[in-house]
Amino acid sequence: MPSSSQVPRRPRVVAMGSREYSVDDYVAEYEKDFDFAVLDAENRHEALQKLPAMVQQHGPIDALVVRVSTAEFEPFDEALLRPLLPGCRIVASASAGYDEFDVAWMTRAGIWFCNSRDAVAEATADMAMFLTLAVVRDAFRAERGARSGTWKGGGIVPGRDPSGMTLGIVGMGAIGKHLARKAAAFNMRVRYHNRHRLSIDDEAACNARYAPSLHELLASADVVSINCPLTCETANLISSAEFAAMKPGAFLVNTARGAIIDEAALIAALESGRVTRAGLDVFCNEPHIHEYFRTSDRVVCMPHMGAVTDEAFRRGERECLENIRACFRTGRPVAPVNEVGGGVNGDHGD
Amino acid sequence: MPSSSQVPRRPRVVAMGSREYSVDDYVAEYEKDFDFAVLDAENRHEALQKLPAMVQQHGPIDALVVRVSTAEFEPFDEALLRPLLPGCRIVASASAGYDEFDVAWMTRAGIWFCNSRDAVAEATADMAMFLTLAVVRDAFRAERGARSGTWKGGGIVPGRDPSGMTLGIVGMGAIGKHLARKAAAFNMRVRYHNRHRLSIDDEAACNARYAPSLHELLASADVVSINCPLTCETANLISSAEFAAMKPGAFLVNTARGAIIDEAALIAALESGRVTRAGLDVFCNEPHIHEYFRTSDRVVCMPHMGAVTDEAFRRGERECLENIRACFRTGRPVAPVNEVGGGVNGDHGD
Repeated sequence: MPSSSQVPRRPRVVAMGSREYSVDDYVAEYEKDFDFAVLDAENRHEALQKLPAMVQQHGPIDALVVRVSTAEFEPFDEALLRPLLPGCRIVASASAGYDEFDVAWMTRAGIWFCNSRDAVAEATADMAMFLTLAVVRDAFRAERGARSGTWKGGGIVPGRDPSGMTLGIVGMGAIGKHLARKAAAFNMRVRYHNRHRLSIDDEAACNARYAPSLHELLASADVVSINCPLTCETANLISSAEFAAMKPGAFLVNTARGAIIDEAALIAALESGRVTRAGLDVFCNEPHIHEYFRTSDRVVCMPHMGAVTDEAFRRGERECLENIRACFRTGRPVAPVNEVGGGVNGDHGD
Repeated sequence: MPSSSQVPRRPRVVAMGSREYSVDDYVAEYEKDFDFAVLDAENRHEALQKLPAMVQQHGPIDALVVRVSTAEFEPFDEALLRPLLPGCRIVASASAGYDEFDVAWMTRAGIWFCNSRDAVAEATADMAMFLTLAVVRDAFRAERGARSGTWKGGGIVPGRDPSGMTLGIVGMGAIGKHLARKAAAFNMRVRYHNRHRLSIDDEAACNARYAPSLHELLASADVVSINCPLTCETANLISSAEFAAMKPGAFLVNTARGAIIDEAALIAALESGRVTRAGLDVFCNEPHIHEYFRTSDRVVCMPHMGAVTDEAFRRGERECLENIRACFRTGRPVAPVNEVGGGVNGDHGD
């Protein structure tokens, strides 16, 4: 780190997000090198007022940390972020997805942008594995029956077993890899499709076989799990043709983004029996969930909470702070989303 | 196998149980050596009539297979089994628990009795792992919220993570060992208590540390999972003193037998917060579930379906048939519960 003789002031790092959460021990150490503060704003309206006020009162914000659970502030656009100019050098988000961030604007403004690559991966994979077990065993319908007094009635038993089933993972990033490892503990066979095939070592570590095409994957999977990001290419990736390519009676799990699945096509596939049951943590029109999903026995609905755990918060915040530390130490964050030329938005004094 | 010149007739094997289910390929092979039939009875009343009628019509039943999901026939006592004498040599149950079988009577009658040691273990461990994830993530309350439109409301997030938690397994048989392996995939630390400590190799394979006393285990566990059989020693094993020994805010999972837990003490522990949430597949008075459990947000209720899966059925039936095959081939089943002297109930002609 630069010593205090080289840098007249510690870089100022401000965290915003709907929750007070911090990796306390880590932050205590961090504060030796950085001036760390939390923005007292609970929603976009407050943030639009308080962020410029904070700059005016305390001076430039060199780095912005955006904690998880940020629906109240979205979108992170020019209107929200412009008050950070010219001082701000980096915005680091604790979330994996970043469709809510105007990365193009940040790039033009010379601000590095970083998402979190691995922080939420394990918690999200846990949710995908949980939903896999839930739909295979029909556990949510069983629980409603147990609560209402019907015991094992309604054809709940015998249940299916994950053991011996093929799990088809669509998108083999950090989440998909964690999921593959967990699925192996349930004796599932794992196949995956990804834009790029993994290295042989990575495939061996995940015990996962590559499917060269999405449709080939779908045709061989008993359970299909969506674990890719939402992009122009993946919007509506799973639509009528893809459901038609699936094994009859397959199970579907989505912990990625709702819009990757054509919800109308999914409803048709559930009604026809092509898909036996679906476990969904994400929906097209959150927080609104389609009436069909909310009321069907064939669907398990979660309120997009796959990544919203203590541990994901801790890891995400830490990943943000490490990206910022690297940015000030080396001129480049550990894992930026965009590429920024040097000195675009002014001299930061280091 | 004895050839037809040594054995004038193939031993007659009759299967009873509430479901038509059989390992078809295996049974086809099996029928080369055994005369395999299914008793057409759906409940105890029918079985009490049809079992003697079957013997009268078709001759002695040499071996009885009792498939899983047998609540309709229980208990398997002298009244039900006496018509099998003097011919019957072995009763093989596809279930793991056998408190419903009068083993003492069978021993006196010279009938071998076998439960299934491993058939239902993995399905039950799957249920224990599922319930662990469910209570840690508060997933069932979240699902009710999502269905009712409250989205992430009610303090559902941030969730807890299994990662880093200590899982305390009470009873380290086949189910506990499978559970330990699965829990490792969620980065849980595993401790166990058992009457007998495992071998060092087994401990290493399970990646599990031994706790010399139950209370020491309870004091160190974030999640306590009950995986021991119900016996005189384990009835009410988890009562007020044991809840007092647990970590404040611990989670409890029971997939073994309801009566191992003092339900009144559990309710008190849930109300005081000593236990944050409980995941229960088994209850004291099945199929009746205590009103508190059925209505509490702190409890996930399953209708004793941990072992009631396709794969458990297949494996259990196969384990029964292999015990019977060994009994007729070698004079002793693979894994009997009781010990039977030779020739007690007559000459079987082999």
